[in-house]
Amino acid sequence: MGKDKKLVEAITSMETDFAQWYTDVVKKAELIDYSSVKGCMVIKPAGYAIWENIQQELDKRFKETGVENVYMPMFIPESLLQKEKDHVEGFAPEVAWVTHGGLNPLQERLCVRPTSETLFCDFYANDVQSYRDLPKCYNQWCSVVRWEKETRPFLRSREFLWQEGHTAHATAEDAQERTLQMLHLYADFCEEVLAIPVIRGQKTDKEKFAGAEATYTIEALMHDGKALQSGTSHNFGDGFAKAFHIQYTDKENKLQYIHQTSWGMSTRLIGGIIMVHGDDSGLVLPPRIAPTQVMVIPIQQHKEGVLDKAAEIRDALKQAGIRVKMDDSEKSPGWKFAEQEMRGIPIRLELGPKDIEAKKCVLVRRDTREKTECTLEEAAAVAAGLLDTIQKDMFARAKAHRDAHISDVKTYEEFKDAVEHKPGFIRAMWCGDAACEAKIKEDTTATSRCIPFGDHEALSDECVCCKKPAHKLIYWGKAY
Amino acid sequence: MGKDKKLVEAITSMETDFAQWYTDVVKKAELIDYSSVKGCMVIKPAGYAIWENIQQELDKRFKETGVENVYMPMFIPESLLQKEKDHVEGFAPEVAWVTHGGLNPLQERLCVRPTSETLFCDFYANDVQSYRDLPKCYNQWCSVVRWEKETRPFLRSREFLWQEGHTAHATAEDAQERTLQMLHLYADFCEEVLAIPVIRGQKTDKEKFAGAEATYTIEALMHDGKALQSGTSHNFGDGFAKAFHIQYTDKENKLQYIHQTSWGMSTRLIGGIIMVHGDDSGLVLPPRIAPTQVMVIPIQQHKEGVLDKAAEIRDALKQAGIRVKMDDSEKSPGWKFAEQEMRGIPIRLELGPKDIEAKKCVLVRRDTREKTECTLEEAAAVAAGLLDTIQKDMFARAKAHRDAHISDVKTYEEFKDAVEHKPGFIRAMWCGDAACEAKIKEDTTATSRCIPFGDHEALSDECVCCKKPAHKLIYWGKAY
Repeated sequence: MGKDKKLVEAITSMETDFAQWYTDVVKKAELIDYSSVKGCMVIKPAGYAIWENIQQELDKRFKETGVENVYMPMFIPESLLQKEKDHVEGFAPEVAWVTHGGLNPLQERLCVRPTSETLFCDFYANDVQSYRDLPKCYNQWCSVVRWEKETRPFLRSREFLWQEGHTAHATAEDAQERTLQMLHLYADFCEEVLAIPVIRGQKTDKEKFAGAEATYTIEALMHDGKALQSGTSHNFGDGFAKAFHIQYTDKENKLQYIHQTSWGMSTRLIGGIIMVHGDDSGLVLPPRIAPTQVMVIPIQQHKEGVLDKAAEIRDALKQAGIRVKMDDSEKSPGWKFAEQEMRGIPIRLELGPKDIEAKKCVLVRRDTREKTECTLEEAAAVAAGLLDTIQKDMFARAKAHRDAHISDVKTYEEFKDAVEHKPGFIRAMWCGDAACEAKIKEDTTATSRCIPFGDHEALSDECVCCKKPAHKLIYWGKAY
Repeated sequence: MGKDKKLVEAITSMETDFAQWYTDVVKKAELIDYSSVKGCMVIKPAGYAIWENIQQELDKRFKETGVENVYMPMFIPESLLQKEKDHVEGFAPEVAWVTHGGLNPLQERLCVRPTSETLFCDFYANDVQSYRDLPKCYNQWCSVVRWEKETRPFLRSREFLWQEGHTAHATAEDAQERTLQMLHLYADFCEEVLAIPVIRGQKTDKEKFAGAEATYTIEALMHDGKALQSGTSHNFGDGFAKAFHIQYTDKENKLQYIHQTSWGMSTRLIGGIIMVHGDDSGLVLPPRIAPTQVMVIPIQQHKEGVLDKAAEIRDALKQAGIRVKMDDSEKSPGWKFAEQEMRGIPIRLELGPKDIEAKKCVLVRRDTREKTECTLEEAAAVAAGLLDTIQKDMFARAKAHRDAHISDVKTYEEFKDAVEHKPGFIRAMWCGDAACEAKIKEDTTATSRCIPFGDHEALSDECVCCKKPAHKLIYWGKAY
């Protein structure tokens, strides 16, 4: 058991140092590796397979709403990036610049896309002529580059993978409808597939996207009480259309500006999965996103018939539509258990000579370590049922944790105390003045996460900061 | 019919000007658009959907052979690119250089990957320790950049989408086996899915990949008689391993260099599909790769019951697993026919009031324009059968065209005459001297495409160029 112990001991515990625990998990679960390119990561097979499952499920949901995939160039000429004033101010300080092509300097330098609003605008300016051409609901899966100074795997890296949707509409109402539709699609995806509960709401002006009229967000709470912005959807109104002269002829033959949206989700979600569900033994993957849902681990595999029976069970599970693998390597069972736990595989199926004799096997849940014994014949059905249960339980646990980490505060003293001593979201009233928002951030490092959708009972009638009349409830928090 | 005619007349005929025909098709079939970034294209929904189908099918075939997907950074530090001498010589003249990150100059400039051998080597140098870690069979789907001077949509652009597989093996034999396995996988994919017959063979030393010990290729013949290199697979031996110091401990505890391969296919394949199968009415897509396989076009759709019945048929086809759409737009049927033909949709299903009365419909093949009448009940089964037939017929026609455009020549006069007057592959004997290969290219612009696999009867016993003894049969051709 010496080796097994070593593997487990190699992770820092969450309580000791959450940041180090996170770094240990991404490395030991073989999700990423560092590269010779500072701030950029290598996404290894176990990490990329999670991304492929995210892509597949999101892409299916996008297409059901009429979205089509396209591909835009990765370069943006400097003059194009500069067309929309707020946008260039937001992004120019953090882009990578290409200045040479082959052996020659370029006439105009090109930035590597940090996001592609300007390219889509340039495209729509030619492609949209008439109301018949609208709406355009395009999306692309690609990588983008933002020259961050501080980087962390999945959460903030100089290059990351994402999808960016860009739509063009005839009216402001259509654009607003699409903006919210995609935000809710993101939220449902997080809750149903990633088992991550989210707060849906709107960003304040200070926190909105560079160039947007309104930005909507979903905010998740990590195990350490910090918030993770997990997906955003922006309504641009006709701001970009005016900067890029994108007009269409309406039914009355009049020229009108289009109205646009954009929305994106990224590999950052993988960071969210780790920090919401992980534990001191490593990753814990929700069954719906897990590349491998069940790992069959034969015990005393050299004894006659064990491997054959294990393979038979594996095939039966596969037949039932479960993503299953068998670990028949030369490692000890204890080592295999520790590896399966580190990798977050939702169920381990143990099967040894005695089990085979008794025509049964043992299923062990990764999330609770609870054991279930069943007959070999029942195994596939029991595993399928357990996967559903695990998915539901993981969401319920994450939601209970989130809800237990929301502090409602009325005074600035309470606010500061909560930031200091109660990790999690802080709910407080805000007068709407950007000065108060800035002061809170400076005093506490907490940022406004969102103004939640729906009706919320007022916690008081005055701003938590300046005590002037306040009608807006805000979720605040320290954030990744 | 005025508008319908205009749409059709807008394409240059293949006979008049093949290059212009090609450009017309990519634009009119809405596969791509040009962008503000010189040499880069926008891949529009109709083009990207073809790429998605290519990806899906190739990815499935890769995974069946044990390949896993990963993602490497898009940037390569200059010092890393320079580690393998032949490789840097081949690529440095055509890469884009990032020199600034945000507002600051970089300490070391980074190139945007033209291909990722150096990044995978850098990764394997840390990741591979023992024979137990081998083989590594990794692949990534990404975009790469090569600063080409002359560009053409899909065929040659400054940025293009591709997959690049990179494997690491314990022995030279394992690497050679993987190299050939992937070449055959590519060839089978082209023939079975894209209906494009290919010649499988090896590149001469002059034409092999920068840094490879051996390069294998599949070569397809376009309608105009020019060759298209459609996929390549490289065996690197231990050349990169020595340059990057990638060693593993074998079972006897001795240090050994790994042996590597790489292999790639790109959006260039879409150019191949267009130029092998297209005609003067536009694109002709093989059913297995067509995003839409059947377009249902209602005739006199305003008459009662027509749209309902058309939708019913569409649903029946969808139920049968066919990718089907219905064009119920306000355009005239003639306009819809022309559009469906331009877009290369394999089958059009026509259905009007008289058909409905007679309980039948008409299926029209895109490739031959042949009409088939059947009852509404039979429609799904008949369409499915027709799709199979079209796929087979398209391959057979492409193969017959290819085989009819191979000229066997014995003398240099015959060679030059064939280049001049017989578009297609030229087969001729070669002594193996790079000087003859270079002379032929200079005299005729034809390049050696490959030394085909298998036994081939010698056409003569002397080199077509220098008349010295020759044992190698070569496929020559003008190429894209």
